[in-house]
Amino acid sequence: MRVKVTVMLKDGVLDPQGEAVRHALGAMGFDGVNGVRQGKLIELDVADGTTEAQVTEMCEKLLANTVIESYRVEM
Amino acid sequence: MRVKVTVMLKDGVLDPQGEAVRHALGAMGFDGVNGVRQGKLIELDVADGTTEAQVTEMCEKLLANTVIESYRVEM
Repeated sequence: MRVKVTVMLKDGVLDPQGEAVRHALGAMGFDGVNGVRQGKLIELDVADGTTEAQVTEMCEKLLANTVIESYRVEM
Repeated sequence: MRVKVTVMLKDGVLDPQGEAVRHALGAMGFDGVNGVRQGKLIELDVADGTTEAQVTEMCEKLLANTVIESYRVEM
């Protein structure tokens, strides 16, 4: 069973990686890019019957740093 | 306008980051995690009127390394 977890920095947390991308796009001539945020997309291949609660626990304990990151689980 | 770009390693390309996550989840007692692939999720805030072709060009030139990565654009 495929599960998708997206992990993004919370709003207000500085994202230097995204900022570097934004700057690079501007320098390459792509106008109109006002902001870039970069996060993680984690695709898990888990056993059938794995519950959303279990995946949430994985996020809380390992996949996301909940102090600065938010996550979303798509089963 | 918000645009989402997901960048994943192509199938067959070794993903040490995902493998490390898989191993860590197993060590933490989460059984049944057969595989993990980790990619990037890039959220762009672009000017209205930006075309999908322009975003695709950004992917080809900067956001993805098309030798080993595939990307998907969601406008």
